[in-house]
Amino acid sequence: MTLRLGVLVSGRGSNLQAILDAISAKQLDARVELVLSNRASAPALERAARAGVKTQVIEHRQFPDREAFDAALIAALEGAGVEWVVLAGFMRLLTPSFVEAFAGRIVNVHPSLLPAFPGLDAQAQALAYGVKVTGCTVHFVDAGMDTGAIIGQRALTIREDDDVERLSARLLTEEHALLVECLSLIAAGRVKLHEAPLEVPREAPPRAETPPQTLDRAGGARPRVEVT
Amino acid sequence: MTLRLGVLVSGRGSNLQAILDAISAKQLDARVELVLSNRASAPALERAARAGVKTQVIEHRQFPDREAFDAALIAALEGAGVEWVVLAGFMRLLTPSFVEAFAGRIVNVHPSLLPAFPGLDAQAQALAYGVKVTGCTVHFVDAGMDTGAIIGQRALTIREDDDVERLSARLLTEEHALLVECLSLIAAGRVKLHEAPLEVPREAPPRAETPPQTLDRAGGARPRVEVT
Repeated sequence: MTLRLGVLVSGRGSNLQAILDAISAKQLDARVELVLSNRASAPALERAARAGVKTQVIEHRQFPDREAFDAALIAALEGAGVEWVVLAGFMRLLTPSFVEAFAGRIVNVHPSLLPAFPGLDAQAQALAYGVKVTGCTVHFVDAGMDTGAIIGQRALTIREDDDVERLSARLLTEEHALLVECLSLIAAGRVKLHEAPLEVPREAPPRAETPPQTLDRAGGARPRVEVT
Repeated sequence: MTLRLGVLVSGRGSNLQAILDAISAKQLDARVELVLSNRASAPALERAARAGVKTQVIEHRQFPDREAFDAALIAALEGAGVEWVVLAGFMRLLTPSFVEAFAGRIVNVHPSLLPAFPGLDAQAQALAYGVKVTGCTVHFVDAGMDTGAIIGQRALTIREDDDVERLSARLLTEEHALLVECLSLIAAGRVKLHEAPLEVPREAPPRAETPPQTLDRAGGARPRVEVT
């Protein structure tokens, strides 16, 4: 079954390019129905146009709040017949409404081995911590910050002479390969997202840092990805 | 320069065995001067005895507090001429006094890619989170829980059919190799621990989860390990 993808971008779109290349090389059975950018100047839009893919700019500044912005994103994606959403360097946090509209059908690429170094500048975070191994993660998106169930990860050894730029460049190669690999598994129907069992909230109040999606799950259980 | 090691154990001592094997195979230029256990029943003690290594049991229950227990450990290690301390499955958290007595000369092996999954049952934590890549870490010990500067890490891919037992067994093989590798680098004088610059505490109070050793370091800077 050909995956009908919507790709959300904010910048260069090198992950978008990896998807387009894999489709054109027949490594990935997918079609990019729409590339959405929140920035009109994103070079990713040119890449999409060169590949003959429909693009649309929806600037977040033109909306009164995140809900209204996300409603416009949802309408555009649904209007284009998008089934799966890929965040490829999209720099806006999505609302629960958006996550719900595409529940279990949004994936993100993150340049660290989550749960280590979530959020911005993951490569710099890893170097500052002094880890010797880092990597990248493709995961389902939930309402938290890089907290969703993990589909795939690749490790990368940090070199003594790495700086943020060199490390980011090597990681990007891994991200491209991992993203195409994970999307291919999804296209082949081999990725299953198992929800954690629901449970009545326990007496102890949840700790502040508990990600929102686990608040009502049994014993800290998380949704889990099975790859068959 | 032959490393004069003290190895602290609580259980099986398979990491101790890896050290003893590497020494006897001349892969590691070291001598185990003393194996210290806080449990008289630790099978690690038999391994040490078989290798002709001096052992001593110091039971933490026989001391009024952690300070007194750690003082006894320090006295035993210094009495045996130990220069470097290896925590090989030692299940007691050490006091700042102990860490200070062997500052920059205590290493620990941990079965995860720190800073992910510190503390107990790291393998179970990794499986519960649903990561696809985990690993092990050899790091300097500071006053925090698995927070010290990282010397080396090895990644390991989690399999769909892994449980805690299978994953732990595969990780253990990696731990043994990594520990010997890191100790060899230390014995060769190739591991340098660079302290982070000290700084006057800033106005904002530190967040509760900030590891103790960073409270008075510049801008969240951490000590860093350089391997030459």
